[in-house]
Amino acid sequence: MAGVQESLPSRYFKSKGHHGRKAENEPPFTEKYFSQIVDHFNFNSMGNGTFNQRYLITEKYWDRKNGPIFFYTGNEGDIWDFALNSGFITELAEQQRALVIFAEHRYYGKSLPFGQESFNIPQVGLLTVEQALADFALLISQLKQELGASNCPVIVFGGSYGGMLSAYMRQRYPNLVAGALAASAPVLSTAGMGDPRQFFRDVTSDFEGYAPECSAAVRGAFQRVQDLAEHQAYDRLQSAFALCKKPSSPGDVRQLKGFLRNAFTLLAMLDYPYSTHFWGDMPAHPVKQTCFDLYSLYVECADPTGCGLGSNSLAWDYQACTEIELCYESNNVTDMFPAMTFTPAERLAYCSKRWGVTPRPGWLQTQYWGDALSTASNIIYSNGDLDPWANGGVRTSLSPSVVAINITDGAHHLDLRGSNDADPASVISARKTEANLIAQWVAMERLRLK
Amino acid sequence: MAGVQESLPSRYFKSKGHHGRKAENEPPFTEKYFSQIVDHFNFNSMGNGTFNQRYLITEKYWDRKNGPIFFYTGNEGDIWDFALNSGFITELAEQQRALVIFAEHRYYGKSLPFGQESFNIPQVGLLTVEQALADFALLISQLKQELGASNCPVIVFGGSYGGMLSAYMRQRYPNLVAGALAASAPVLSTAGMGDPRQFFRDVTSDFEGYAPECSAAVRGAFQRVQDLAEHQAYDRLQSAFALCKKPSSPGDVRQLKGFLRNAFTLLAMLDYPYSTHFWGDMPAHPVKQTCFDLYSLYVECADPTGCGLGSNSLAWDYQACTEIELCYESNNVTDMFPAMTFTPAERLAYCSKRWGVTPRPGWLQTQYWGDALSTASNIIYSNGDLDPWANGGVRTSLSPSVVAINITDGAHHLDLRGSNDADPASVISARKTEANLIAQWVAMERLRLK
Repeated sequence: MAGVQESLPSRYFKSKGHHGRKAENEPPFTEKYFSQIVDHFNFNSMGNGTFNQRYLITEKYWDRKNGPIFFYTGNEGDIWDFALNSGFITELAEQQRALVIFAEHRYYGKSLPFGQESFNIPQVGLLTVEQALADFALLISQLKQELGASNCPVIVFGGSYGGMLSAYMRQRYPNLVAGALAASAPVLSTAGMGDPRQFFRDVTSDFEGYAPECSAAVRGAFQRVQDLAEHQAYDRLQSAFALCKKPSSPGDVRQLKGFLRNAFTLLAMLDYPYSTHFWGDMPAHPVKQTCFDLYSLYVECADPTGCGLGSNSLAWDYQACTEIELCYESNNVTDMFPAMTFTPAERLAYCSKRWGVTPRPGWLQTQYWGDALSTASNIIYSNGDLDPWANGGVRTSLSPSVVAINITDGAHHLDLRGSNDADPASVISARKTEANLIAQWVAMERLRLK
Repeated sequence: MAGVQESLPSRYFKSKGHHGRKAENEPPFTEKYFSQIVDHFNFNSMGNGTFNQRYLITEKYWDRKNGPIFFYTGNEGDIWDFALNSGFITELAEQQRALVIFAEHRYYGKSLPFGQESFNIPQVGLLTVEQALADFALLISQLKQELGASNCPVIVFGGSYGGMLSAYMRQRYPNLVAGALAASAPVLSTAGMGDPRQFFRDVTSDFEGYAPECSAAVRGAFQRVQDLAEHQAYDRLQSAFALCKKPSSPGDVRQLKGFLRNAFTLLAMLDYPYSTHFWGDMPAHPVKQTCFDLYSLYVECADPTGCGLGSNSLAWDYQACTEIELCYESNNVTDMFPAMTFTPAERLAYCSKRWGVTPRPGWLQTQYWGDALSTASNIIYSNGDLDPWANGGVRTSLSPSVVAINITDGAHHLDLRGSNDADPASVISARKTEANLIAQWVAMERLRLK
């Protein structure tokens, strides 16, 4: 089943669920549900009702009188995964005496507007960015009311797609949100404003950065896969990668190569200086590790039959078919991967068949301010130089209050993780700058709300 | 048919269509249609297609190289009505060499997403502010492309609800819109942030301002209507007001009183210093005129059977049942009208029965920045002191670039009308300030777009 999945590195591996994972530490969250409007933009639709949106909350650090609210804008996964891997937010909450909320994104985790039928057509149609933002807006305003916190400044946080959402929240709802930390948010590339070759080129750079032999080894390995495929040695491929089902067509092989490409992508994204359990179990410095031990990792899900397609992956597949533009390509020239395109035409063909939708190129650019991000205020765009998503985001400050922070030795939203002895100086310094800016925003907002 | 209509002064009188009307002057517009997305926020809805959105355009004044685009965000009516009564925009276009576009609002005029079925349930559900704004955003970005005008600054204009939309456009789409002139835009009261008594109190002030005897006469007249009703002298009421159908119940009488109250409201809104043909044929200084000649005007539609309910009124009725909050009341104490409430509970009961919807109090406030309007930039809120809508809007400047302009002798968006020998000095001065600010915004945007 070839398709748009090939281009979505961040959702490639089956989630184990948070119970199988170790948290950085165990924050004292309570799990709650909010009665959310299903369709904010049509008062007479099939979504003319409510669903239960999950959120996690802790008042443990909160100074009700003087402390702010820290609100994580959940992204494409189970909200516990983000809560358990964003220790910076709780650490900062302790310093700045904040209430902390992690809100789950509609259609992910347990926040399914139509339960088991959420991914049917047409029910899946209410999975859009604007609906998700309106969810967060309603949740924030109603929780503030319930908690008697109407004068309490709100800061939003998010990583990756969640970082995009946090920046959008500040743009869309400055009445509710005093500022946003958008960590590793590829706001430009996902809006179609970038070079389709950038992504896999930057993955390759990470491997070359450790040792040129490393990327050469990867090229060689892909060539062997290709050779086996050309000789239709499908048995060998199945045993080499422990596939549940034997590949049987060029499409299956393409899918396998896509999975492998994404395994390397994940290594680059998650190239943290210590072992993590966010997406799968990852050793410290996984890129370096892999260079010495090619192939032993990540076979669990390198499966052309699509073992990675849990409901979270379905939801992300749909988003990539509608609003989020991920037409990244590898070409074996500017990167170490086999040439694999994913053109707008291929996207349209897949999405129309799979979901009955027509993608809207340019839509995110129109909706969320495209090249006019400087007209916003109080947004931090942080990025790690090791992260292949970084150059799809904002890398230079756009104004005194729309600030880029670049973390030399950082991978994908390393700054959102809790502090660790292995942290490089660059992330320690980034977190300090972020903490200071956030404290300033909170103070300014307090004046406005008085 | 009592209901929410009673509270909607601006849509009370049946439109005659633009062909029956005299324009201030005849601007050289070409009528065109744009293939618009029916549902921007659901990729799999019944609105999974396009409809023809009407717009008017003239390049007559445009300097393609140096001139901006002036874009009117159409409101609750036939777009020609606004084009023919907003001469300021074309006059300014001539001065500043602008392309002019007037875009019709979905579900009004000829821009019916589902044709004759647009007001059926559930088809009517796609009539929301956010959908309308997204229409304008797509129209602007695609027309700019088609016209090879991607570096051309866009200024939006609107009056009344259209003024609200123009302010929202600048808030929502600063990437597409460099600034907004929001004339007579009751952004606060329609978002539920005001005093329900303000509106009819201010209508009353206008009449009292001419002569205290005048409001006393109105009170007396309403008392006579009440007396006739109490004696069930329905024949007399029918002949006095030339009703097509004899009233036969207290509900009919209430509806009649509502119509009459709104006739006075319209007089106050349209209290221009010269004769106009915007909503009905109106003499110069209609409030003053009416004080001398009570009852002879506006009988045409003072009809409890609802002759005013053309499709534009239906659409507005729906909007007042969903997002726009118009729970204004008269009480015969702070105003000259019979006590007539329209509470949130009455609204809910009517709207649920009529349209199958639940109104969302506070929704506009959440969506369009509530008390944080100062965080926007490049918006003019202009208001006329004679206009009962004025005090539901922004009356003091919120920042150097969110500017209030108050027009002492102005009625409802007088500043948008073309210049006239009878113009008071206050509107002449307001238009100059507006022109200067707009020229500054255009210059700034040109720098950004380069």
